[in-house]
Formats: sequence, C-alpha cells, structure tokens
Amino acid sequence: MSIDAIPIHVINPLPTEPGLTGNALPLLREISEMLRRLLETGESTAIDLSALPLTPIDLEWLREKLGEGEIAVTLQASGESTLNETACPGVWWITHRNENGAVTSQFIEVSFVPELVKAHPEDVKIGRDHLELLISDL
Amino acid sequence: MSIDAIPIHVINPLPTEPGLTGNALPLLREISEMLRRLLETGESTAIDLSALPLTPIDLEWLREKLGEGEIAVTLQASGESTLNETACPGVWWITHRNENGAVTSQFIEVSFVPELVKAHPEDVKIGRDHLELLISDL
Repeated sequence: MSIDAIPIHVINPLPTEPGLTGNALPLLREISEMLRRLLETGESTAIDLSALPLTPIDLEWLREKLGEGEIAVTLQASGESTLNETACPGVWWITHRNENGAVTSQFIEVSFVPELVKAHPEDVKIGRDHLELLISDL
Repeated sequence: MSIDAIPIHVINPLPTEPGLTGNALPLLREISEMLRRLLETGESTAIDLSALPLTPIDLEWLREKLGEGEIAVTLQASGESTLNETACPGVWWITHRNENGAVTSQFIEVSFVPELVKAHPEDVKIGRDHLELLISDL
C-alpha cells in the first residue's frame, strides 16, 4: 500500500483563541448548505443562535467571518430588532432586543428577504382602508 | 327637479397652507390605487417624486399624511439610501443620497418588500462561492 492510498480525513481545526469552542465552524458549513437550498428551492431557513452552545467569542468569530453587507434594517416593535445583511448576500444576522435594549435572541436567517421585512397582504388591506378614510376626510 | 337630484361634484379642496400646491392630494389617491393593484395582482409600482411639481411643503404634507411605520432600511452604496415603511404597510418612502449626503432622488414604492432590499440569486451564488472558499481555508 503506497502512502498515496492512505485515506486522509480532514477534521475541524482545534480552536486556537480562548473562548472559541469550535462550535461556530460547523455553523458556517450549515449556512453554506442553507444557501444551496435557497438557490435550488427558494426555501428560507433560520438558525436560532440562542439555542446553541456558543460563547460570545464564538458569535464574534462567526459574525466576523460572515462580514458586513450593505443593508441594515431596524424594526421597532416592543423593542428594537436589527436585521443586518452580511457580506454573503442572502445571509441576515438578526438581533431582537427588549424594551430595555437587552438582547433577547439572535438568529441567522438565510433568505432573499428577511420574513419580518415583508408587508403582509392583510395589513396592506387594513392600511389601504385607513388611507381611503383619510382621503375622504380631506 | 328636486334639490336631491342636483348632481354634486366633489373637487379637490383648495390648498390652505402657503407652499401647498394641491398636487400632493391626487398622489394619495394614486397610492391607494397602487395598493389596490398590489393586493389584486402582486404588482409593485413606484412614483418618482423628483419628477413631479411638488414643493418641499407638499412633500412634507404627503409624508405626514402617510405617517411612519415600524421598519427602516438603510442601504450603503456610493451614498446612503433610506427606505422607510410608512404607516400604510406596503408603502415605502425611499430617499437616495450622494456621497456628500445630498438628496439625489425620492420615490414612493408600493410593494410588499422594496426591490432594493431583495438579495439577487446571482449575488447569493457568488457569496456562497466566497463562503466555500473561506471555509476551505479555515
């Protein structure tokens, strides 16, 4: 058996920075897979980062690897949510905050447009009815 | 002929504030029509405000009537663009600025999601290829 025939298995590199658990790298692979699915089927998917064993350093590493995109969305509900495009188009970093500004959850959404940005037809209909009323009062 | 039979034609009220030309009210009617079209056919449409004879006071009146929504988008290209949802879901007030921050154009877009917020499949594909390269280098 020559040395060329020895099967080589690439394994995750060990984390080198303190606080890096190594759990963020498989997420990058998962995101790439989600992008493949989006392109092939149009299916949007999301990862709940709060539900995973990630340290703040892991999150920072992940965010740095994904980079920053051109689009930033803020949504004012009971607290503020931010939906930031990463340097990978179609990958959005979503942070929800409560009324005191504390982060309540973080998601990575893979979609052409984040679900929360879309106006829903029933809301558009209600808004149009209000607009018609407003016009008739002018 | 009784008085009930006299046809009454409602006309646009005359502008009452200085600087109001009366050109903004028909726009509200147009927006309502655009919303009807969006709901019935899904068709997105836009009005180029810069191309219309509107004074800054007209624009202020229009913006005030449309109100403020929960979603604000900023897009950094050569200059900053803002895409703000109005209080009428599906009606977006879009302002483009140049590198010096001067307003270059303003649009009202009627759509479920502003066109500029959507990631385009070809960009998603290029981004995924970059991500794959990045992963293989880790």
